[in-house]
Amino acid sequence: MSYRYEVRLAGEGGQGVVTAGLILAEAASVHEGKNVVMTQTYAAQQRGGPARAEVIISDDQIDYPKVAEADLLLALNQDAYDRYHHQMKRDGVIIVESSRVGGEQADRVMVHKIPLEEISCQATGAGISANFVALGVISGLKGIVSAVSLRAALKARESGTVRTRNLKALSAGFLVGRHMKKGKIAFPVEFRQEIDG
Amino acid sequence: MSYRYEVRLAGEGGQGVVTAGLILAEAASVHEGKNVVMTQTYAAQQRGGPARAEVIISDDQIDYPKVAEADLLLALNQDAYDRYHHQMKRDGVIIVESSRVGGEQADRVMVHKIPLEEISCQATGAGISANFVALGVISGLKGIVSAVSLRAALKARESGTVRTRNLKALSAGFLVGRHMKKGKIAFPVEFRQEIDG
Repeated sequence: MSYRYEVRLAGEGGQGVVTAGLILAEAASVHEGKNVVMTQTYAAQQRGGPARAEVIISDDQIDYPKVAEADLLLALNQDAYDRYHHQMKRDGVIIVESSRVGGEQADRVMVHKIPLEEISCQATGAGISANFVALGVISGLKGIVSAVSLRAALKARESGTVRTRNLKALSAGFLVGRHMKKGKIAFPVEFRQEIDG
Repeated sequence: MSYRYEVRLAGEGGQGVVTAGLILAEAASVHEGKNVVMTQTYAAQQRGGPARAEVIISDDQIDYPKVAEADLLLALNQDAYDRYHHQMKRDGVIIVESSRVGGEQADRVMVHKIPLEEISCQATGAGISANFVALGVISGLKGIVSAVSLRAALKARESGTVRTRNLKALSAGFLVGRHMKKGKIAFPVEFRQEIDG
């Protein structure tokens, strides 16, 4: 059976969802030989407006390039969570930035509230690499792409201090994801949302 | 009347069509306040496989995010030209890398064969920034986005020697595009293709 995995990354301009999507897309395609289509939408707004990237990864040809219901949602702010948390496949996974998203609503999916920015701060000295922490978590927790492929894709696209910082964030996130997968970390507000349907 | 401009950038992995698309998309959205949707497709192949990026720029909301017929096609290799040269709007413009594309077929559009890689070499010492030469030409010739916005978008995404090199390539391409617009340069093989329909 052919494999198709749909990821939606959402936040606001400046949070790096497009960059995270690019690295995910290039890790999966160039380094793991998958077919990938990525779509990003920029609203006619300055930094701070809504930003969204969608990445579809498949071992088959991708005829329909839009994400309707995601397997995985990364919501880096409340608006992103509010817009997209209900557009999920059953058994989908939502990862949210715990300092920015509250008031979850019921749905059929697992929500992991993770202090991505704080982990970024601890690992790199700055919160700005939360997007790469998230990529690491996604890899460690869900195994969609390997950490090796993500690192290779990052190195191909970034250089200097930015590369160094983002590699650290990626590693920290990956460790967190692996620990979560093994049940060694459960962030306080991890929970399975109620089925309301 | 609302404005919608559709650009298709095509070549092979490693030629930087995704990077060029990103800079174009971010110049138009973040720096010029347009609505932008970008889609990139990665075939399940290593470096050298077909690569494509599509950028739709509009002052209105973009409901249909796919490019059917492009206003502008950049074809960095023969395969890209062969695939897409007939999917053009009337009065569309095609820019091709002259060292890699030959044997044009008849259509309703203007084709500019430009030695993008050679211009990149002359401006930066390396042919690898041909994608940014192309962006500069597109800006200078068609004015879709300003050179100022392209430079700002590039600076936001790149740093160090890569940034310096690509800024030089962008400027060189922009000058070429401006000269072409004023009729001061016509590359030997610029021609209007025959209408075959």
